[in-house]
Amino acid sequence: MTHTEDPVQSDIAWATPEQVVVHGIDLVTDVLGHVGLGDFAFLELFGRLPGTDESVVFNALVVALVEHGLTPSALVTRLTHLGAPESLQGAVAAGLLGLGDTFVGTMEGAARYCAEAANDPVWQSDDEALAAVADRIVTSFLDQRRAVPGIGHPVHKPVDPRAERLFVVAREHGVDPANERLVRAVSAAASTRTGKELPVNVTGAIGAIATAMGVPSHVVRGLGVMARAIGLVGHLVEEGERPIAGHIWREAEQRATRPSTPGAQALGP
Amino acid sequence: MTHTEDPVQSDIAWATPEQVVVHGIDLVTDVLGHVGLGDFAFLELFGRLPGTDESVVFNALVVALVEHGLTPSALVTRLTHLGAPESLQGAVAAGLLGLGDTFVGTMEGAARYCAEAANDPVWQSDDEALAAVADRIVTSFLDQRRAVPGIGHPVHKPVDPRAERLFVVAREHGVDPANERLVRAVSAAASTRTGKELPVNVTGAIGAIATAMGVPSHVVRGLGVMARAIGLVGHLVEEGERPIAGHIWREAEQRATRPSTPGAQALGP
Amino acid sequence: MTHTEDPVQSDIAWATPEQVVVHGIDLVTDVLGHVGLGDFAFLELFGRLPGTDESVVFNALVVALVEHGLTPSALVTRLTHLGAPESLQGAVAAGLLGLGDTFVGTMEGAARYCAEAANDPVWQSDDEALAAVADRIVTSFLDQRRAVPGIGHPVHKPVDPRAERLFVVAREHGVDPANERLVRAVSAAASTRTGKELPVNVTGAIGAIATAMGVPSHVVRGLGVMARAIGLVGHLVEEGERPIAGHIWREAEQRATRPSTPGAQALGP
Amino acid sequence: MTHTEDPVQSDIAWATPEQVVVHGIDLVTDVLGHVGLGDFAFLELFGRLPGTDESVVFNALVVALVEHGLTPSALVTRLTHLGAPESLQGAVAAGLLGLGDTFVGTMEGAARYCAEAANDPVWQSDDEALAAVADRIVTSFLDQRRAVPGIGHPVHKPVDPRAERLFVVAREHGVDPANERLVRAVSAAASTRTGKELPVNVTGAIGAIATAMGVPSHVVRGLGVMARAIGLVGHLVEEGERPIAGHIWREAEQRATRPSTPGAQALGP
Repeated sequence: MTHTEDPVQSDIAWATPEQVVVHGIDLVTDVLGHVGLGDFAFLELFGRLPGTDESVVFNALVVALVEHGLTPSALVTRLTHLGAPESLQGAVAAGLLGLGDTFVGTMEGAARYCAEAANDPVWQSDDEALAAVADRIVTSFLDQRRAVPGIGHPVHKPVDPRAERLFVVAREHGVDPANERLVRAVSAAASTRTGKELPVNVTGAIGAIATAMGVPSHVVRGLGVMARAIGLVGHLVEEGERPIAGHIWREAEQRATRPSTPGAQALGP
Repeated sequence: MTHTEDPVQSDIAWATPEQVVVHGIDLVTDVLGHVGLGDFAFLELFGRLPGTDESVVFNALVVALVEHGLTPSALVTRLTHLGAPESLQGAVAAGLLGLGDTFVGTMEGAARYCAEAANDPVWQSDDEALAAVADRIVTSFLDQRRAVPGIGHPVHKPVDPRAERLFVVAREHGVDPANERLVRAVSAAASTRTGKELPVNVTGAIGAIATAMGVPSHVVRGLGVMARAIGLVGHLVEEGERPIAGHIWREAEQRATRPSTPGAQALGP
Repeated sequence: MTHTEDPVQSDIAWATPEQVVVHGIDLVTDVLGHVGLGDFAFLELFGRLPGTDESVVFNALVVALVEHGLTPSALVTRLTHLGAPESLQGAVAAGLLGLGDTFVGTMEGAARYCAEAANDPVWQSDDEALAAVADRIVTSFLDQRRAVPGIGHPVHKPVDPRAERLFVVAREHGVDPANERLVRAVSAAASTRTGKELPVNVTGAIGAIATAMGVPSHVVRGLGVMARAIGLVGHLVEEGERPIAGHIWREAEQRATRPSTPGAQALGP
Repeated sequence: MTHTEDPVQSDIAWATPEQVVVHGIDLVTDVLGHVGLGDFAFLELFGRLPGTDESVVFNALVVALVEHGLTPSALVTRLTHLGAPESLQGAVAAGLLGLGDTFVGTMEGAARYCAEAANDPVWQSDDEALAAVADRIVTSFLDQRRAVPGIGHPVHKPVDPRAERLFVVAREHGVDPANERLVRAVSAAASTRTGKELPVNVTGAIGAIATAMGVPSHVVRGLGVMARAIGLVGHLVEEGERPIAGHIWREAEQRATRPSTPGAQALGP
């Protein structure tokens, strides 16, 4: 049996004593000192380096996901570090575990309806068909009593400035705007149906643009995971300089613990 | 090459269509309905089922670690579930990641000095030698400005009632009390040296007793990990009935975020 | 505002200097030395200790999930320990992360269709209605090209002896056998429809029995998570005595890496 | 109490409805479309954007850590995905958990001895003092029977081309070469003392250069964590196209399981 028939094969990287090759590119001579981190991330997803325009758009998408302030994930990373300071990797991993259906899955949800709608693209040149597709998408979520992914934000109203900026960057750098039209139509349909202000948010824009660039739906969540790993390391830097996890824990514990017995206290970990 | 010479071998479990065998014991006929979870955990660590006395002591050690209230780990599990409700395993795993050097490592620390002291056991029958060993242990930690593992507690003073109870259970069921004497001597030496009230706490008792029972030091932490996995599932049950993670997050985020700009708010995840 | 109106409240555990209380029970006087680990896990899920019969059944369910040999989770725990031996909690957490829709989710899937069928229980006393319900369940999965949860096993045919044993234990200890009848009917319907031998497997039996005992569907997966945490610590004990992770890694890496360049090798971590 | 006296404060990011600010920089107007992912990662660590030279060096350091082929971490991510395909974040988190003392900790180890040596910098201008410092570092590890961090590689001999390239990039872009001299001296001392060929490897170069750039030692590991999160998403892309985890698992399980009973097989997860 030759090696190529072996079901256990990975073509991402290999080395000789003098050389390291990743997706066919010489890491030492052609990457280090020449290729930035965002472009190398593109290489990992697509198996090739991005063109100039693709590079600008892709970097913008991932950068927009790095830092969202004191999120549940950031709290988790800081609280985990409090208990296990020996394991920075554990603190970051713990924070990443919260990037699921509620928070980052919205990005994947938007990517999925964009990808599915692309199978029957008549709406791309027909405004009535567009409205009908958007309405069908909104209905399918509302019927399941689920929030429509990619729209609405507690702070950013009437528009999410990050979403608007990403759409501008994408258009200026040649990304097909069909998915932008689609999520805007979804936003309009959902706003009408619910009577709420539901702008396209940053995850909706990313889901739409990433899908237009060819990122498979099931990997879109990965853009958030790789980006947030960077942000969570940043939170550990700040936690090292000015720790807050201990305060948050002790106050939550003391506040939440039932005081019906005089002198009752929290237990400690 | 016969199979026994293969470096890749695991003897924990195997099966035929009619039979499942774990550590040499038939799971179907001899375990299910007969052996409790704590005894099966003993089997996993020691490769044999416990005797009656061992069973009582081992179950007590692990049970004492299941539930410590709203710890950082419990907060982490609840906050992770908020973002990724599709992955209960992720929420529990995130909580376990905080069981490190600060919180559960103290148990391992106590186990290590008990295990090391056992190499030169003259102190087991000589009170002066005991005091000298204890003092040497305390000094080695204080010299590195580290807390002495297994002693001291913010709430439980002048004694930790769980530690006292575990020592009683251990003695009544035949565990050699040498390590109990040792951690008590460490507690006395540290209290004298620091002028603080530093009783043997629950992790000190567990480290001492587990070591006396033969649990290797590097696995002692595992008692806490397996126990707390149970407790964290319990916290997810309560979180499902009466959620608190969202409140804790939003209040921490709002409180921590710099308000120097009028109208500044937290970002949302 | 009184404390009971505070949205941040947890009633699982609290303490005074002399006392620790978990779900209303004094840990020191009434638990340590008296209550086994499995019964304490029941307390965490149900807020009360089990009766004698409940204890036998619940312990059997969880014990059946502790050890399934060299699973992907066990490999993951061992491989993670290879890179991060300082963090036993990280190695166990990594292994738990694989207990998802493919492997443990089948248990949750079976629990869900049992719980849903209980809403319209006419099938519990009517064999024709039972067959119709089972057929509807099978159809709903096959229509989505998904495997029917809780049935079929690569090794255990024509029956999974663990499932059969768990059903016996449950019946002997007073668990309502309605769900057993239901999953057996599902197994029969699926076998007929697919022409394959698809016995009720251990996860199907656990999903059915746990639901009959009152474990909410979204927590059933937690039985597997708490159980497997124990088993993964056991794999780390064996890995410490006879390491295999390094062999598995190096062989997989060498085998998978493209040899088209003479002298090409794997990179090392 | 004014906000600045509150111990719970984070200054990384905040927002108004129209604006998002990260480390004092407007994300929408000044970052998206203008700043690459590597430079934004620098911002997260240093609180400011890099200069042109810093950008080249920092991107090179992190890029060098993204992809090391079919490492234990890559296997772990793929095996975890097999069991829990619903949770991409869990698969990546599991892989990151193996970036510990053995594999990425070497980077931190090198960073630590560089940082400590900087406290008494006479060796920076005195070759004899340099040799003495290097020898002291090597001795301290060998005395504890530990490998000296940052040197030696199974494939890359007599030099690790990535390390050499990173040193060139760093020098060309103005990084103080003192730490490069130090790790080369450590490499020379260790090679002499052990009689083995122990070149500075990629983790030694990164530890040295990152320290020279001002990354705190306890965060150096974070460079590996953020980088590898990207690489592990890349492995999930390949696993989606050409799965290997199932093969590796089944072969390892079958091979490792004791065949002493006729018909014995592995159990399945």
